[in-house]
Amino acid sequence: MRLLTYRQNNQENLGFKYDGKVYNMEAFGKAIGKSLPNSMLEFIDLGLEKAVEIGKDVKHASTGDLSKCEVSQNDFKVLAPIPKPRKNIIGIGLNYTEHVAESARSLDTDKALPQQPVIFCKPTTAVCGPDDYVLLDPKLTKQLDWECELAVIIGKKGKYVENAKALDYVYGYTVINDISARDCRRQGQWIVSKGQDTFAPMGPEIVTADEITDPHNLNLWLKKNGVEKQNSNTKFMLFNVNDLIEDISTVFTVEPGDIIATGTPAGVGAGRTPQEWLQPGDVIESTVEGIGTIVNTVKEVVR
Amino acid sequence: MRLLTYRQNNQENLGFKYDGKVYNMEAFGKAIGKSLPNSMLEFIDLGLEKAVEIGKDVKHASTGDLSKCEVSQNDFKVLAPIPKPRKNIIGIGLNYTEHVAESARSLDTDKALPQQPVIFCKPTTAVCGPDDYVLLDPKLTKQLDWECELAVIIGKKGKYVENAKALDYVYGYTVINDISARDCRRQGQWIVSKGQDTFAPMGPEIVTADEITDPHNLNLWLKKNGVEKQNSNTKFMLFNVNDLIEDISTVFTVEPGDIIATGTPAGVGAGRTPQEWLQPGDVIESTVEGIGTIVNTVKEVVR
Repeated sequence: MRLLTYRQNNQENLGFKYDGKVYNMEAFGKAIGKSLPNSMLEFIDLGLEKAVEIGKDVKHASTGDLSKCEVSQNDFKVLAPIPKPRKNIIGIGLNYTEHVAESARSLDTDKALPQQPVIFCKPTTAVCGPDDYVLLDPKLTKQLDWECELAVIIGKKGKYVENAKALDYVYGYTVINDISARDCRRQGQWIVSKGQDTFAPMGPEIVTADEITDPHNLNLWLKKNGVEKQNSNTKFMLFNVNDLIEDISTVFTVEPGDIIATGTPAGVGAGRTPQEWLQPGDVIESTVEGIGTIVNTVKEVVR
Repeated sequence: MRLLTYRQNNQENLGFKYDGKVYNMEAFGKAIGKSLPNSMLEFIDLGLEKAVEIGKDVKHASTGDLSKCEVSQNDFKVLAPIPKPRKNIIGIGLNYTEHVAESARSLDTDKALPQQPVIFCKPTTAVCGPDDYVLLDPKLTKQLDWECELAVIIGKKGKYVENAKALDYVYGYTVINDISARDCRRQGQWIVSKGQDTFAPMGPEIVTADEITDPHNLNLWLKKNGVEKQNSNTKFMLFNVNDLIEDISTVFTVEPGDIIATGTPAGVGAGRTPQEWLQPGDVIESTVEGIGTIVNTVKEVVR
């Protein structure tokens, strides 16, 4: 399924996209006699099996049942799929070879490939929607940068997850732009650099894991003002999704709705010659093949 | 008020301590004809004014009204005051002069005093209760360490909070031990070092801000197996509570129930000669004057 969270009449709702149209999940449940929630986290809590089951129900539903729960485009806005995660977003740094190289040239990171995933986090308050503004606070940063990434959504609670079974813990995938203010590192820590409000635009939908044949063979690319800046494939990750879940779950308990931003390929602004930093008005499009595109415009904070 | 979260009959409840006894908040509300919640976050959402008001109600309550809602000690366990925070815990590193010095000698941090607060985070899954085990995973660390700290609980939403008004955003205070596995830093990032499950024991209660005359003059100390290892005062913080809230709120929106661990004074295991690391069976008592003591025993994970 393609699951999304949207706002209508000042209320957050859970929807799904089918054949180009958006339907309300709770209303669809009523139409087919099943009790379904109106929030993404509650739906994820029901497990991937439920999404697969409802996905089949949708395919077999009558046009009448579907039309009853179609969402109008009036006062309609797509939000981040999980507007308020239960845990901060788990970010992975330096997970593509060429990006390790460009970071070592331009930032304070090591030249050697990491031997273990490099983990940081982005607070829940950094999350924003697929077409929301990314805020540039000129008092905090002069070096705002982009990072197009595949995001993994965890579907069930786990600790010490085995590598071979790690994909069983994945609920789905979405797109994230791991916005980074390169000059906001403090004693090497990345949270201020990566954690400011609006620094985690996400969406537009969660595509459930059953619809992604191979998460390790997805093209991903980013354009700034229409010009391609990043273009790679998830097969070039140093630590793949299995490795990441195995490793992270030895450290923290993973929980339904947790989000792992799997790292960005080469082509960030910091790694270019000359370096390029995001400016007010810049439009950044981040795409992962088979999932979708988020389009965010940079806006200056006046304070 | 002294607010606590406790488990009884497998349910989490909100209580308060008064004259050495524990009372249930929701039941007390019923006794005096006010509707009060049974969870800490919901109570914090009502604002500090509500806590002050209920504190007065408690003082004026009849013995009969109070006894109706006293909590029995059967199957009773105090949990972390906020067992599941809304955002990861915001940690502050290197916030006491002597600790900056000991860290520069023994770890990879700078000798110079930080010019801005050094921020990191501990995931919500790291939280555990005031008498819970701290888990030592020998496959992850050989260098488990302690850090006794004052924790600040945020009481209202804020962005760009003015320094002089910052204490208006504080709901209360509690004790936290910012457990750190020194050998688990990755590319300098501290989250694996500080974020493992059980690495944030907290409690035993939140003391509301109206009852702490001066948060910048509280003694705090830590004992390991009865021997004092840390002893300082919050007046020696490099960035005080006002500074921290001002700074953090320029980066992230702060929200009710957010927790700021304000940094530890000198005396951690890494800074001692010879260095001392926590071992299975060690008992660590962390105290902040006027708030309380948490007592945690180290337990080895077998996997």
